[in-house]
Amino acid sequence: MKAIIVHPPGAGVSIEDVNINGNGPGIKILENGICGTDREIVNGELSAATSLNGFLVLGHEALGILEEDTKNLRKGDLVMPINRRGCGRCLNCMLGRPDFCETGEQLEAGISGMHGFMREYINDDERYLVKVPDVIRDIAIMAQPLADLEKSIEEMISIQKRLHWPCIDGTYNCRKVLITGTGTIGILFAMLLKTYGFSVYISNKREPNDIESKIFDELSVKYKNLSNKIDESFDAIIEASGSGTDVIERTLPLLKNNGFYGIFGFEKTGTLNLTSEFLQGIVYKSINITGLINGQKPHMEMAMNHLIQWKKQFPKTTSMMITEKVSINNERRLKEVLSKKRPGEIKIKIIW
Amino acid sequence: MKAIIVHPPGAGVSIEDVNINGNGPGIKILENGICGTDREIVNGELSAATSLNGFLVLGHEALGILEEDTKNLRKGDLVMPINRRGCGRCLNCMLGRPDFCETGEQLEAGISGMHGFMREYINDDERYLVKVPDVIRDIAIMAQPLADLEKSIEEMISIQKRLHWPCIDGTYNCRKVLITGTGTIGILFAMLLKTYGFSVYISNKREPNDIESKIFDELSVKYKNLSNKIDESFDAIIEASGSGTDVIERTLPLLKNNGFYGIFGFEKTGTLNLTSEFLQGIVYKSINITGLINGQKPHMEMAMNHLIQWKKQFPKTTSMMITEKVSINNERRLKEVLSKKRPGEIKIKIIW
Amino acid sequence: MKAIIVHPPGAGVSIEDVNINGNGPGIKILENGICGTDREIVNGELSAATSLNGFLVLGHEALGILEEDTKNLRKGDLVMPINRRGCGRCLNCMLGRPDFCETGEQLEAGISGMHGFMREYINDDERYLVKVPDVIRDIAIMAQPLADLEKSIEEMISIQKRLHWPCIDGTYNCRKVLITGTGTIGILFAMLLKTYGFSVYISNKREPNDIESKIFDELSVKYKNLSNKIDESFDAIIEASGSGTDVIERTLPLLKNNGFYGIFGFEKTGTLNLTSEFLQGIVYKSINITGLINGQKPHMEMAMNHLIQWKKQFPKTTSMMITEKVSINNERRLKEVLSKKRPGEIKIKIIW
Amino acid sequence: MKAIIVHPPGAGVSIEDVNINGNGPGIKILENGICGTDREIVNGELSAATSLNGFLVLGHEALGILEEDTKNLRKGDLVMPINRRGCGRCLNCMLGRPDFCETGEQLEAGISGMHGFMREYINDDERYLVKVPDVIRDIAIMAQPLADLEKSIEEMISIQKRLHWPCIDGTYNCRKVLITGTGTIGILFAMLLKTYGFSVYISNKREPNDIESKIFDELSVKYKNLSNKIDESFDAIIEASGSGTDVIERTLPLLKNNGFYGIFGFEKTGTLNLTSEFLQGIVYKSINITGLINGQKPHMEMAMNHLIQWKKQFPKTTSMMITEKVSINNERRLKEVLSKKRPGEIKIKIIW
Ligand SMILES: [Zn+2]
Ligand SMILES: [Zn+2]
Ligand SMILES: [Zn+2]
Ligand SMILES: [Zn+2]
Ligand SMILES: [Zn+2]
Ligand SMILES: [Zn+2]
Ligand SMILES: [Zn+2]
Ligand SMILES: [Zn+2]
Repeated sequence: MKAIIVHPPGAGVSIEDVNINGNGPGIKILENGICGTDREIVNGELSAATSLNGFLVLGHEALGILEEDTKNLRKGDLVMPINRRGCGRCLNCMLGRPDFCETGEQLEAGISGMHGFMREYINDDERYLVKVPDVIRDIAIMAQPLADLEKSIEEMISIQKRLHWPCIDGTYNCRKVLITGTGTIGILFAMLLKTYGFSVYISNKREPNDIESKIFDELSVKYKNLSNKIDESFDAIIEASGSGTDVIERTLPLLKNNGFYGIFGFEKTGTLNLTSEFLQGIVYKSINITGLINGQKPHMEMAMNHLIQWKKQFPKTTSMMITEKVSINNERRLKEVLSKKRPGEIKIKIIW
Repeated sequence: MKAIIVHPPGAGVSIEDVNINGNGPGIKILENGICGTDREIVNGELSAATSLNGFLVLGHEALGILEEDTKNLRKGDLVMPINRRGCGRCLNCMLGRPDFCETGEQLEAGISGMHGFMREYINDDERYLVKVPDVIRDIAIMAQPLADLEKSIEEMISIQKRLHWPCIDGTYNCRKVLITGTGTIGILFAMLLKTYGFSVYISNKREPNDIESKIFDELSVKYKNLSNKIDESFDAIIEASGSGTDVIERTLPLLKNNGFYGIFGFEKTGTLNLTSEFLQGIVYKSINITGLINGQKPHMEMAMNHLIQWKKQFPKTTSMMITEKVSINNERRLKEVLSKKRPGEIKIKIIW
Repeated sequence: MKAIIVHPPGAGVSIEDVNINGNGPGIKILENGICGTDREIVNGELSAATSLNGFLVLGHEALGILEEDTKNLRKGDLVMPINRRGCGRCLNCMLGRPDFCETGEQLEAGISGMHGFMREYINDDERYLVKVPDVIRDIAIMAQPLADLEKSIEEMISIQKRLHWPCIDGTYNCRKVLITGTGTIGILFAMLLKTYGFSVYISNKREPNDIESKIFDELSVKYKNLSNKIDESFDAIIEASGSGTDVIERTLPLLKNNGFYGIFGFEKTGTLNLTSEFLQGIVYKSINITGLINGQKPHMEMAMNHLIQWKKQFPKTTSMMITEKVSINNERRLKEVLSKKRPGEIKIKIIW
Repeated sequence: MKAIIVHPPGAGVSIEDVNINGNGPGIKILENGICGTDREIVNGELSAATSLNGFLVLGHEALGILEEDTKNLRKGDLVMPINRRGCGRCLNCMLGRPDFCETGEQLEAGISGMHGFMREYINDDERYLVKVPDVIRDIAIMAQPLADLEKSIEEMISIQKRLHWPCIDGTYNCRKVLITGTGTIGILFAMLLKTYGFSVYISNKREPNDIESKIFDELSVKYKNLSNKIDESFDAIIEASGSGTDVIERTLPLLKNNGFYGIFGFEKTGTLNLTSEFLQGIVYKSINITGLINGQKPHMEMAMNHLIQWKKQFPKTTSMMITEKVSINNERRLKEVLSKKRPGEIKIKIIW
């Protein structure tokens, strides 16, 4: 079958005919999403990526159609495969939660230990498939990255059970959360945190552009320019820019007592310097800093629910999220979008 | 009445006659404990300390005897006052948990906003008093610092509910916790974590001395010399040395996936430098870093239970913990022990 | 202003002009929902209902439009007032959770201690108002009863944290929940439990009618006729028929080990008889039986989210839920629908 | 080796020489405890009990001495084997928590599926052994039944997380718990609930005898005679009498709002009748009824901690708990104590 092939740790990408045997029912791939991790692999920049017998099928975001009945699913159902699989040895993996794999030997489709989903079809166990409601077929590909955010917010709320975090009216309306970064992830975080009832602020190092302003307006989230002085403090901050440690250094002091600082982005540059005085403040203020990664099947199911809701509730924002569709037959364009983020891009889909 | 008086932010300490009115039943003070915070105030080094109308009674660790019946306590009961009181405005304070005060305006006996307990007697509301069982009168003063540790371990376990943290046999026996620092706090953490069933390691930058070796042996905790290479990794690390950021820099990389790093000590020197690569590891490994501070009434009650248990279970260690008793009448020695940590000191008590 | 008036404990209902002063911003009422509790009051059957100075405005389900800006809401916003208010004395009420009022002295709009919402306008504090998204204006009235169910499922999941309840894939897909009763409440429970990912079964003592069959088909829930032998067992059962104790007696034995039995309906007739042998089974099987009541502000916010989602996802079911609209000016019909459940009724709205 | 043999479902008990092979290190049995379950088996009254190849070694409470080093234990260590073992198929068993076995196919030493511990020695995997501190060798046998109570209170507190259950001072001091039954289990529950900080009441259908009065006095628990009118209400009730359903019928109405009713005892007689009005009260009051059973390894470890504490704290009560020791060589007396509860008995030990 046709597949998008990479050769980590080397750079490069090609469309080739491959022969891969799998177990479980067949799923015809309809679409793949592209994210920054794919580009890092294509550009030979992700040291964690590994080939299997000389090559790797790329892709960890996929929407497919099931080709036969299973116990709980029907032929013709739209499905999304989950992309991280357990190590088979640790307790958390045994419980369907390889996001908390203890050995570090979990498999990552299209990254390490397991071929990805950018191919004509895959075979997979029902256990790793999430049903996709037809009403969100157009935006369902967002469910894979969104699942990681669902897990992140679940984890934040779980961690904050260390204190009484709900407000005086039982909601989270009084809790102010600052998101850094205005990319796909930042926007999805904003929608999710609004849905949970938080008071949401989103930020970047510049003024928002027109599209961003429209989105933030529809979502009723407030904007902060990190280049200006910020007089407010926050109950939680989610670092979703992944730009550099300076963003963390800039925002960590904005946390209130008992604040939660979630690092979701992968910082590319810099060194974070925390003085002993600052660390004393972390103790005095009961600050919590947590690395946030990966959602699993329950989070992908939550993501489907939220996408249905948001399509109705935030029609402008959701309709703007897929910024380009590239046919699998358009090899030239495909290589372009797989190599470099395009201006104005939110999410690009490959169509099979 | 006689009281030990300080004048923050200035240095100095004196024993003087003061006139303080209080509400609630009277408690005759029997003993006070001395800790590093007291010495920082005496030496004019704690900027958070404040005078009230020109002076401050020192002391946040006290054992007293109740002088009249209250609703739930009886005249003659041994009691310990809790040292942090709520701001009166935030939800967590209203719930008896000013350890999570949101405004930062909580009162700290003997530090800020409230006179301390180093005086002949205090008046206090029953609500802030914890009954002390007679069988631990000799070591009960340890309950105040221990309460902070009870809260810390409770918080660690609460935070780790984000994943499945118990072992395959339902206990915490397989979870390895490293404590840095071998002072009072380090030793109390070791006893507490053993009691919770963890696999406990304690460490310092040198080989243990004879007394330490005896203690670690009785407690069945393993020792690690941080000056040597450490090949093991840990599920949790509690920084209890409070020495400098180098200890954190040395031990943070020893955390396993999903690891918990609790900062209990107040680092005195240095700057912690975390590269972007290291921060990526925090994300990939779902690391959690938390500032740990202060226990409240429920933790002081737990501390009483544990002290009773340990007196029976670890008789050597518990009998070695009070290293000196100084009479309130021995003013010279009192000023010495209030100014500087003594060699071999674990806990020094003032006897009224 | 015009209002629907009752005189508990006496029977009867009338539309009258009343003079009620309130505090807080004005809200013009657009719609009210009618439920069984209203009819019990109208028929003089609810002993818990009480008059205030000789009469009571009925109604605890309302949709209104805000007439002035508040701190967080804007003039013109659609809002829904929450119907239970705290006793002002207990901890849970102070935390915005009078659903767990400890004194039993909470206020219930339109039932006891507080006039209801079936009147031209109300004044209320922003704290008790939930914003209603415009996209669900037509079905938003369902959010009040739905909030009670949101709280119920939240409580079920909270209680089942006593064991490891998620399935091997981290979801609740393997957990089978049986709902008894196919009224509004039964159907809303079915949608909610599906959204949480449970395997859902709904039941009645007869075969389903045509409308029910269409609904259960759209929701993908399975049907059980309680008059037939049932060979399956369930991880949880929600009693939502409120018919009689025979339903409980019939279904309680269908619980698996560690099963959760939630009683949501108010049983009207019968006596539940549990033999000592059966009670032994409750112990051996770690069974849990819980009374489920009332949602608060966080649950009404969740309800809004779910109604938006379901309008998109289950268009047939949601469009069938409002079975009749009665104008406030149609006094004759109003008295009919307030006195007796109509055949085929799901939810009836009063339009102002 | 010598063993105490039964032949369920038939009655009878004998001491015989048997040949049983086991895996894992050898443990020489020092003592066994006798409880009501043993007597039911001996008297042929426990239908759940089953023979293995024609007979069953009795006994699920044992203290032994390890005969060889294991990974974490040393030759000569005192150990206690845990008595319930997982089904090997369900998630909760895989997590070391067969107390929540989902299949009902867990093994129970000395009851079903697995020979008991009343024999000269056993072989067992380290995973099922709990280290017993030497300081409590005399009373350690109480740790097996106590483990079930540790699990029960853990479960109660876990379930009550559905609301805010701690008091205004952060403790459980304001929460009143009523225990029904004044046997071993009732007394152990009293000590445990006191240790957790609850306000504890214990009860029976008569006035307490002299020994009971001394015990309740040392423990500072209040006594209620259930034959008299009781004007108080309780936040939790633990049924530990196991006498009959009349005790439940008598005490269930004493629960406050949000109350927890834990059934620990196995009711022998009667039928519990709950009217529809009473069931409505369960809903209005958010009552929770839970069957409490079995502790596992973590609970047995907690039990060891508490026994050490209580030996110091409640010397009278703990010294009265072992009411008789019977030598394995005294066959006549052994058969007597295995057949019928003795007057004044709390716990009887068999000495090997
Ligand atoms: Zn991705
Ligand atoms: Zn794993
Ligand atoms: Zn101190
Ligand atoms: Zn506060
Ligand atoms: Zn209603
Ligand atoms: Zn209340
Ligand atoms: Zn037993
Ligand atoms: Zn099992």
